[in-house]
Amino acid sequence: MENQPLGTGKVAQIGIIVKDIEKTAKAYADFLGLPMPSISETAGIESSRATYRGEPCEATAKLAFFKVGEGIDIELIQPDEKPSTWREFLNERGEGVHHIAFWIKDTAGKVKKLEAAGMTLLQTGEWGTGRYAYLDAMDSLKTIIETLESDN
Amino acid sequence: MENQPLGTGKVAQIGIIVKDIEKTAKAYADFLGLPMPSISETAGIESSRATYRGEPCEATAKLAFFKVGEGIDIELIQPDEKPSTWREFLNERGEGVHHIAFWIKDTAGKVKKLEAAGMTLLQTGEWGTGRYAYLDAMDSLKTIIETLESDN
Repeated sequence: MENQPLGTGKVAQIGIIVKDIEKTAKAYADFLGLPMPSISETAGIESSRATYRGEPCEATAKLAFFKVGEGIDIELIQPDEKPSTWREFLNERGEGVHHIAFWIKDTAGKVKKLEAAGMTLLQTGEWGTGRYAYLDAMDSLKTIIETLESDN
Repeated sequence: MENQPLGTGKVAQIGIIVKDIEKTAKAYADFLGLPMPSISETAGIESSRATYRGEPCEATAKLAFFKVGEGIDIELIQPDEKPSTWREFLNERGEGVHHIAFWIKDTAGKVKKLEAAGMTLLQTGEWGTGRYAYLDAMDSLKTIIETLESDN
């Protein structure tokens, strides 16, 4: 919609930073009545081409997903020790909800709009067929926002 | 579903504690491309019959809601100064995502199940045609959980 900076108002993920993804994924599986999900790991910098605060980002994270509604997942994220928005959040605020994510198109254009609205670009990266960006919106929206874009 | 302690795995709300609901609601309205929502206030203890950590709870909060998907809202909550899970969270962690909520049936029975699973009952209350309960699940799920039940 024309008046939406992102082109969507539909939340796609609630991202939660955890220290022990096996343990927390088991707790969510029990709580939601879902099978234990597979736990994946983000790709290394060679394929992710990740950046964190404008510098190359060598951090990786373990991920697990739970479907909690139509088109919405809870994403658990266990960061490694290297600098990233995930590790920074864990060190500064501890475990808890880190971001709210939206599926969008035109990541570069949308990031520019969000920066113009006062958000700070934190981290970017790619996967095989898509790309993400995290933006610090703590001042305005009291959370970090993630944009997700798929070429499929 | 039988294997779901709550009887649902569908998230209904993402609850965010804020200091200035007018300002943050405006930021969300702009971000989501939605009109500025009406801001309501929770009822006083005479009708809410609220409790906080087992004691009568005289706290109130200002609320604003944004639809961000099928059956899911972002809820902004500006607490007053009186003791509540909202005020405790703001004092201890600052502004940010406070809870994830689910529509359920049989609040008393579900709260017992969640307490048996290790969660701590924080706060309860009623509105005209329903009731809520907040449970501390920081240890297992890394967030507070809210149950919502409507008689309608």
